[in-house]
Amino acid sequence: MTMLDPAAFDTYLRQRAAETERLLSDLLGADIRMDEIARPHNLVSAMRHGTLNGGKRLRPFLVSETTALFSGNAEAAARVGAALECLHSYSLIHDDLPAMDDDDLRRGQPTVHKAFTEATAILAGDSLLTYAFDLIAAPETDLPDDRKVQLVLALSRAAGIGGMAGGQALDLEAETTVPDEDGIVMLQAMKTGALLRFACEAGPVIAGAGSEDRQRLRRFGEVIGLAFQLADDVLDVTSDATTMGKATGKDAGRGKATLVARHGIAWAEQRLDALVEEAVALLAPYGEKAGILNATARFVADRQN
Amino acid sequence: MTMLDPAAFDTYLRQRAAETERLLSDLLGADIRMDEIARPHNLVSAMRHGTLNGGKRLRPFLVSETTALFSGNAEAAARVGAALECLHSYSLIHDDLPAMDDDDLRRGQPTVHKAFTEATAILAGDSLLTYAFDLIAAPETDLPDDRKVQLVLALSRAAGIGGMAGGQALDLEAETTVPDEDGIVMLQAMKTGALLRFACEAGPVIAGAGSEDRQRLRRFGEVIGLAFQLADDVLDVTSDATTMGKATGKDAGRGKATLVARHGIAWAEQRLDALVEEAVALLAPYGEKAGILNATARFVADRQN
Repeated sequence: MTMLDPAAFDTYLRQRAAETERLLSDLLGADIRMDEIARPHNLVSAMRHGTLNGGKRLRPFLVSETTALFSGNAEAAARVGAALECLHSYSLIHDDLPAMDDDDLRRGQPTVHKAFTEATAILAGDSLLTYAFDLIAAPETDLPDDRKVQLVLALSRAAGIGGMAGGQALDLEAETTVPDEDGIVMLQAMKTGALLRFACEAGPVIAGAGSEDRQRLRRFGEVIGLAFQLADDVLDVTSDATTMGKATGKDAGRGKATLVARHGIAWAEQRLDALVEEAVALLAPYGEKAGILNATARFVADRQN
Repeated sequence: MTMLDPAAFDTYLRQRAAETERLLSDLLGADIRMDEIARPHNLVSAMRHGTLNGGKRLRPFLVSETTALFSGNAEAAARVGAALECLHSYSLIHDDLPAMDDDDLRRGQPTVHKAFTEATAILAGDSLLTYAFDLIAAPETDLPDDRKVQLVLALSRAAGIGGMAGGQALDLEAETTVPDEDGIVMLQAMKTGALLRFACEAGPVIAGAGSEDRQRLRRFGEVIGLAFQLADDVLDVTSDATTMGKATGKDAGRGKATLVARHGIAWAEQRLDALVEEAVALLAPYGEKAGILNATARFVADRQN
């Protein structure tokens, strides 16, 4: 089993996050789709506020690294990663709205509806979601059309009714009708897992790898998604708001069902180890080349914020 | 100049709207993207409520008729039209939200956030927007990949920051800072015009027509968009809530700047005639084949609700 050591991985992840941040800032810059028309300054500022906030950029990182595994076009991967991050940012902006999770703080900064208005936050989310598909389809994304179509299809399904948005709806329902354990796993796989799965599946699509590779990376993404959510639930119990840059202890406060609430922290830690092992085993056929992705699985399970 | 008589056109439009309604009901049916996962019943119901409301389906109609003008694939056009109508429905659901226009009534029915909850309305809009791109990219839409990519790109730009969403943001700003006449025309071209322009441009793209045809239909769509918005502003002054199935007189009540408020009804009627003439002149090269589209231009200018 090949794996970078945690400190080296952390440095590498930060470097890549800084690159993603620069690309996003360019893409959400002064000339964003403004060739012929008036500029809604406020809306662009809100989109930037909701996106350029120093996140870990884990999803673009996974797109880039799974593309690199198959020697795909790195620049195209960066653009698809940026599209995915725009879409992820839209979901956070809308989830934070008063009618949804009603959060004032995100990564230590005021949420978009607090920094701007609720109307602008709704529109900023809508615009970022729309822009994600623009970025994939745009001529500047140097990929064959059939791969662009596959990416649009996979992303829309990961984000839509059968994925993230559907999972968020189930999560809202879960506040009144507590789901059983299968129900919890399923809603988390939709709400959080679907985008991470897309991030890992995107690489083989961008690189034009075969369907077996695509299935393997898709499953790797599912496992990463399960680990990510479990680590999140652990952090909600063990961390504090300063470390997380957002409210914690909310799940218990709302009586929200999580696997950690049912089985405890020790069980969760064991389960996380098992998931990392499964992820690493999935990438065994790629040998040394999978070192960074293996380290990413470990990072996702161990993350402290 | 060829044009169907208004009664015949009206019957034809209704027939086509009924077909679109059936297709949308199928596409938003029990099996919508639910192969492997839990079904968020409430969210699907809200998406259906916000979409299956007996609208005129003008945008899908334009997609189908501009496709027919170039003998393109009618079934693919119907699916692209349905995608566009999902996207249009999303925009209405979000525009009606309390934080936006705060409307309780749409086509005589409670708006989605009244019939369901605000959170569900936000998610239903998000899901319909996402589903629009799914429908275009899906294998069931029988089009070459390069045309799908062109459609995704054109639709995302029509709907995004440089189009509808940007226009809505400018419209919200216009409630406090009144724009000049150029500003009004520009924000309306973005907010309302961009999707109608896409509807007309989609036909030549679906049919694989040349760039001159595409430019011509794009301009036709712009002119239709101007006429649509002007007729809307006239109706806001002259109509009542029963006819419109939604609140009227709102523009004046909010001190919102419209061209009708500035220049009066008589000016608007003259301008509408001029726009219809321009639209018909644009389609002159297509002769008799453009009869239905010509009648559509007249219909848009003359509509009573």
